[in-house]
Amino acid sequence: MSNLTRDALKAMDKKDTLSSFRTRFELPNDIIYLDGNSLGAQPKAALAVAKDVVGRQWGQDLIKSWNTAGWFDMPYRLGDKLAVLLGADAGEMLVTDSTGINLYKILALAAKLNPERSVLLMENDNFPTDVYMAQGLIDQLGGSHTLKLVPGDEIMAAIDDSVAAVSITQVNYKTGRLLDMAAITAKAHACGALAIWDLCHSAGALPVNLNGCNVDFAVGCTYKYLNGGPGSPAFIFAAKRHQNKASQPLSGWWGHSDPFAFSRDYAASPNISQMACGTQPITSMAMIECGLDMFLDADMAEIRKKSNTLCDLFIELMESRCGDFGFELNSPRDGTKRGSQISFNHDNGYAIVKALIARGVIGDFRAPANMRFGFAPLYVRYVDVWDAVEHLRDIMATGEWRKDIYNQQDAVT
Amino acid sequence: MSNLTRDALKAMDKKDTLSSFRTRFELPNDIIYLDGNSLGAQPKAALAVAKDVVGRQWGQDLIKSWNTAGWFDMPYRLGDKLAVLLGADAGEMLVTDSTGINLYKILALAAKLNPERSVLLMENDNFPTDVYMAQGLIDQLGGSHTLKLVPGDEIMAAIDDSVAAVSITQVNYKTGRLLDMAAITAKAHACGALAIWDLCHSAGALPVNLNGCNVDFAVGCTYKYLNGGPGSPAFIFAAKRHQNKASQPLSGWWGHSDPFAFSRDYAASPNISQMACGTQPITSMAMIECGLDMFLDADMAEIRKKSNTLCDLFIELMESRCGDFGFELNSPRDGTKRGSQISFNHDNGYAIVKALIARGVIGDFRAPANMRFGFAPLYVRYVDVWDAVEHLRDIMATGEWRKDIYNQQDAVT
Repeated sequence: MSNLTRDALKAMDKKDTLSSFRTRFELPNDIIYLDGNSLGAQPKAALAVAKDVVGRQWGQDLIKSWNTAGWFDMPYRLGDKLAVLLGADAGEMLVTDSTGINLYKILALAAKLNPERSVLLMENDNFPTDVYMAQGLIDQLGGSHTLKLVPGDEIMAAIDDSVAAVSITQVNYKTGRLLDMAAITAKAHACGALAIWDLCHSAGALPVNLNGCNVDFAVGCTYKYLNGGPGSPAFIFAAKRHQNKASQPLSGWWGHSDPFAFSRDYAASPNISQMACGTQPITSMAMIECGLDMFLDADMAEIRKKSNTLCDLFIELMESRCGDFGFELNSPRDGTKRGSQISFNHDNGYAIVKALIARGVIGDFRAPANMRFGFAPLYVRYVDVWDAVEHLRDIMATGEWRKDIYNQQDAVT
Repeated sequence: MSNLTRDALKAMDKKDTLSSFRTRFELPNDIIYLDGNSLGAQPKAALAVAKDVVGRQWGQDLIKSWNTAGWFDMPYRLGDKLAVLLGADAGEMLVTDSTGINLYKILALAAKLNPERSVLLMENDNFPTDVYMAQGLIDQLGGSHTLKLVPGDEIMAAIDDSVAAVSITQVNYKTGRLLDMAAITAKAHACGALAIWDLCHSAGALPVNLNGCNVDFAVGCTYKYLNGGPGSPAFIFAAKRHQNKASQPLSGWWGHSDPFAFSRDYAASPNISQMACGTQPITSMAMIECGLDMFLDADMAEIRKKSNTLCDLFIELMESRCGDFGFELNSPRDGTKRGSQISFNHDNGYAIVKALIARGVIGDFRAPANMRFGFAPLYVRYVDVWDAVEHLRDIMATGEWRKDIYNQQDAVT
């Protein structure tokens, strides 16, 4: 048994320099929320923003708000804030559309920028929608390109001079395994390939340095660790050196060099706005800023340190206090090799996660056996790790998970 | 001079069977809002919905709301409500993504469904983003297709057996001119072409009968006459007979036949959900229902009748009371040939619209000379038409529009 105690973890919370951030989130008292890797918690400021956007900006100022409330500029303003967080420069990022759609833009653009190459390379255990979007694009390109899918640990070896672009999710959505952005990008460039990174499970979870790694393009979502709100628009990064060379194909009016000229023919914007397509969902987008502003107040190195400690503690307590129940760690043990989530496999994982949720411990489940727990350092406390494991221990020891209601299949997010 | 009087128009408001709908909108007292064709007014219910989505569904119920608050089903539930309004069947419409992105999906799908044909036909005065998306697609298809652009009154004649799809905006965004959906669709089908309709300026403005006209595909936006809120997600229609034949290329996980299986390869859903791509902006989407519910309470024939009367009155008063100031009608005089907006051209239109806005009469301007006024029958009163024209008459008679502040160029939506 570990010699950790609940009091020891409470003492860690007292010393936690990030602890004040938790007060800036709306979190129900009876919930231990370990699903910020799926939907981040609500920054309290977001409710006031929503009321203002709907009540005043839309309700009172109506169409004028496109200018006076900065609606048009929002994708750029938020993109520039995000750039600070992710090691990009101003004018290299936009908040817009969805992750999948942004990836489609980038993959199509990469195919144009590297026209002699025919292979798109991805991890075979990539988040499926990334693979699906590549398959949709390749089908549309009519046989000129192929998708090569290899295990994550074979990505480096698979990059060769047939590869047009390697498109990688940095943190695996199931296991939390972290790939080496600098090394893979360097290998891609050495082979003449472009490097595209999906940061869905990275942004807000760990330090990311896009330009430091010389990354070409990136996409990601804002509703996980960035706490942007349900389905909040995604982001897209295009390094300055790739702007104004070729156009992404979803060439809507927001990507035109002069949108309000309403000229008949498309003329691509020479800058990051070419990555935009059309009108954005303003209310959902405006709330993203609340989450971003918190990250800009915090130290990402501290966030990373706390994330690693939370995850280490979770593994240690799972193994010391739930070691008899058949859980199998499905995440890297080495904190430098993973994001901010821990997965355990268990044959009865589905029912166990449901039993946990019924007790207010919110994790999620990914078929076939993957129990997934995210640790968002801005609002998860050390004591939450203890309490979550104790609930799980109790559920297993008493057989509570065997109840019928937990074993009936229904939609799980 | 017309023998209309302000009192006569006030009397019409008293008898207006739609007048009670105005009370369900948030409208500032000092505003005459004639820009519902650009951004619809705010249904009062929308603020409560936003507070509930952000405060309770996100803030308290967190990830569970994907199921318990119906977030996953929202594109379908809203699509089915919209289907009632637009003459489609349940399971033929989705609310998702943006109009431009939805058009891209449909154009790409149409190219697949009609593989022997190479021409996409559009009106040359189409809303530019429709043309841009077609240009982006054609560029990506690598020379296999061409875009043919002809004047609106030559569309019928231009449909021949080279045309894969004719993609038409039913109501012209500048002039309000209404094209004949039944006739153009019939001609397209007679020539073996598919008919795609953009309903951005139709939905909520006039009766639309997609299946009655045998339309193949349609797209449109929810933030104009439907009052969905700034940048609220768009809609897409695919007739049942075209579902499960080919896939649109933005093949994200929401379009998969079993999204939560997280299988490696894309397998297209056999139904309308194949038109979906990825996670949607829930807060912006949820508010759309407030506008839709009002339309489902109203009689579209009455809406159309009032719309025509409002527009006829505006033309009559503009010509009788502002006839000396050089305004030139840029909309069909015949109410059966137009949507719910009226445009006048004037060389100084930009400054005049700004002077009107400063007085609280909100219309908009489209280069080079087009002053555009939308008449949303659910909240625009007959007396508003009178008052708007009187403001304009005063602005012209006094030369108020000549002030420097109205002649400085800035962004106009």
